[in-house]
Amino acid sequence: MPHIALPPDQPGIRGAMAFRPETAKPLNELVEILLRGPNTLTPGERELIATYVSYLNDCHYCQSCHGAVAAAHLDGDEDLVKHVKADFHHAAISDKLKVLLVIAAKVQKGGKNVTAEDVANARKHGATDLEIHDTVLISAAFCMYNRYVDGLGTTQPCDEAMYRERGKMVARDGYVAVSKTYLPETTAAR
Amino acid sequence: MPHIALPPDQPGIRGAMAFRPETAKPLNELVEILLRGPNTLTPGERELIATYVSYLNDCHYCQSCHGAVAAAHLDGDEDLVKHVKADFHHAAISDKLKVLLVIAAKVQKGGKNVTAEDVANARKHGATDLEIHDTVLISAAFCMYNRYVDGLGTTQPCDEAMYRERGKMVARDGYVAVSKTYLPETTAAR
Repeated sequence: MPHIALPPDQPGIRGAMAFRPETAKPLNELVEILLRGPNTLTPGERELIATYVSYLNDCHYCQSCHGAVAAAHLDGDEDLVKHVKADFHHAAISDKLKVLLVIAAKVQKGGKNVTAEDVANARKHGATDLEIHDTVLISAAFCMYNRYVDGLGTTQPCDEAMYRERGKMVARDGYVAVSKTYLPETTAAR
Repeated sequence: MPHIALPPDQPGIRGAMAFRPETAKPLNELVEILLRGPNTLTPGERELIATYVSYLNDCHYCQSCHGAVAAAHLDGDEDLVKHVKADFHHAAISDKLKVLLVIAAKVQKGGKNVTAEDVANARKHGATDLEIHDTVLISAAFCMYNRYVDGLGTTQPCDEAMYRERGKMVARDGYVAVSKTYLPETTAAR
């Protein structure tokens, strides 16, 4: 049961955002730019980073939700998403994404863990400064979203079909557009 | 030295934001609402929460910057800011703020640490659902900002006078307005 009076029909971060639409607006804009904005990393790759960090933070809702969005971007390959969470070093992803996931995992533990060697290794595998920047910020941002979702004790369904359906919708329409389906109308119109 | 090519004249999060103005926009809007928007918690109280979480995350830039903004809101009382960081249970703040800082500290470690008892205790001391929500999100958000600042290896000056001066400016003008002094013009105009 949530710690505060969140809308009972909205699970996870949706309930928290519907409770506080003022903060939902920049939270949705941030995730939209980070995971779907113009970038040399594909949306699928960026969703995998978000999913992996949410897995490290043990946030059931976020890893299920973003795992489903990642799969939707990756031709429905749910096994790949599971493989990245369990052991990304041996998953069928690029070497560049692997070294970026190393950086993301270090940021999850705390920003100071990232070393010059980690960054040099990412560059050696072709990562640009923008890709390194966005990897750090995606990991940092999901350390926020995960804490927000768990810290309020939001309801987090176990229904995989629900996440799969939402994942397809978000992959198609995006976070800001989908948020208008559950945020109070006044916010959607702002 | 920063891990990527950040503008050399901008320390801390300012350099990161100037490097990536697209994400700077929602990041500034979020902190503006959380720390300065309409709220029954004063800006000084909210800056103390941000400062305390940044202290727990050992982020020199953020705890110095927000500590200075907090002091500016609190009649320049830098000793109170130091006392909150070192031992908030015995600092000259309200009992309500103390129980909210307990929740903020738990969120900093991970959202699942917040218990129904913590929330009941906050309510017993007069905290509203919105105040509890915002405390959770302020703590979660600074777990992001701190990781962003440290994860990129930003430059973090030790010059207390610099933070004091910026703190007064931010307390007076706000985060969004001050960001326009260091973000590329195209962003400021958006």
